Amino acid sequence: MDALQERLTEFAAARDWQQYHVPKNLAAALSVEAGELLEIFQWLTPEQAAAVMDDAETAHRVRDEVADVMAYLLQFCTSVGVDPLAALAAKIERNELRFPAPKRRGERGERE
Amino acid sequence: MDALQERLTEFAAARDWQQYHVPKNLAAALSVEAGELLEIFQWLTPEQAAAVMDDAETAHRVRDEVADVMAYLLQFCTSVGVDPLAALAAKIERNELRFPAPKRRGERGERE
Amino acid sequence: MDALQERLTEFAAARDWQQYHVPKNLAAALSVEAGELLEIFQWLTPEQAAAVMDDAETAHRVRDEVADVMAYLLQFCTSVGVDPLAALAAKIERNELRFPAPKRRGERGERE
Amino acid sequence: MDALQERLTEFAAARDWQQYHVPKNLAAALSVEAGELLEIFQWLTPEQAAAVMDDAETAHRVRDEVADVMAYLLQFCTSVGVDPLAALAAKIERNELRFPAPKRRGERGERE
Repeated sequence: MDALQERLTEFAAARDWQQYHVPKNLAAALSVEAGELLEIFQWLTPEQAAAVMDDAETAHRVRDEVADVMAYLLQFCTSVGVDPLAALAAKIERNELRFPAPKRRGERGERE
Repeated sequence: MDALQERLTEFAAARDWQQYHVPKNLAAALSVEAGELLEIFQWLTPEQAAAVMDDAETAHRVRDEVADVMAYLLQFCTSVGVDPLAALAAKIERNELRFPAPKRRGERGERE
Repeated sequence: MDALQERLTEFAAARDWQQYHVPKNLAAALSVEAGELLEIFQWLTPEQAAAVMDDAETAHRVRDEVADVMAYLLQFCTSVGVDPLAALAAKIERNELRFPAPKRRGERGERE
Repeated sequence: MDALQERLTEFAAARDWQQYHVPKNLAAALSVEAGELLEIFQWLTPEQAAAVMDDAETAHRVRDEVADVMAYLLQFCTSVGVDPLAALAAKIERNELRFPAPKRRGERGERE
């Protein structure tokens, strides 16, 4: 992931795009791309959505939008100096305290 | 990243949350969390936005929202069987062909 | 609607908030609020989502988020000088040409 | 606005699209369209964003996305039986209590 993050930085620098890649713009772009991923699913039933990778063209579109979300997330993290994996690990630890797992599996958990 | 992706899967399984973690819901949740990250920046000038990590409380909030975006992106990828880093590497290669870097640096690139 | 649009303008002016209510910020805020509305639905099945107004507290939350989306949409329109109802009427006319209705009802339309 | 709301309902009915126009899908579509509006602004400076209507093509795109956001907001409201203007009026009243205007204008308000 570090290598890809660096490649994204070089890609932007080679095109003089760092001027645009400031935190506020990157947070907006991340949100826009997450919307484009959601667009693929907006009219689908849960069943159709679960089978979305069966169609080669849609599967390509899903991978493409995942890549865009990841790209802007990593570039946002570069711009504010946040390590996304360290942030995620810390969050999982907080969530394990906040939402203790039930003793016995099978108790149907209600999603907060 | 693989280890965190697995931990997220176990976290959801221990709480019987897999029933909610279907592709359409996870794409919606990813978009919602990207909106929460953007919310931090919505009223800031570009200058204020660039200094967002100087305030300890806001910096914590940024890391927290980055973690949520990453968590739902990874869980979405698990649900559709997409490798996010492979998808990103493939996209960077396509973009290098689509937006060739100018020969000489310093030509001000216009962001597409 | 004009009266509410004016009231929003006065509300912002009385608090010296016009400085924040520029087009880019209002477009971001609109997107953030649309995300908050979606958040209510993200883990619901289509059936649960269709019954969302049966619970008084959730119904209040839905109305509250609808109001926020409408407020930022109207304020955005004020900031760029767009008449939202005229824009919508023009779009419906374009869509009637773009997606002609089938001759006979009952042919199951596929949502674009 | 009522007339447009009805026209949207007839438009969807004539194409057998009501099956797709359930609350969860419409909330997702609203969020996706708000993202498309934001996309126009994502790389612009505040100054460029303020002049966005000077270019005829971009102005058309802004009006088009405003229409889409309004269309899905109204259709969402139809699907859950919410009156968007009544919801907005009630919210403005709540906000007038929540954020009292300063006695004297000119005290620079900080945007919450």
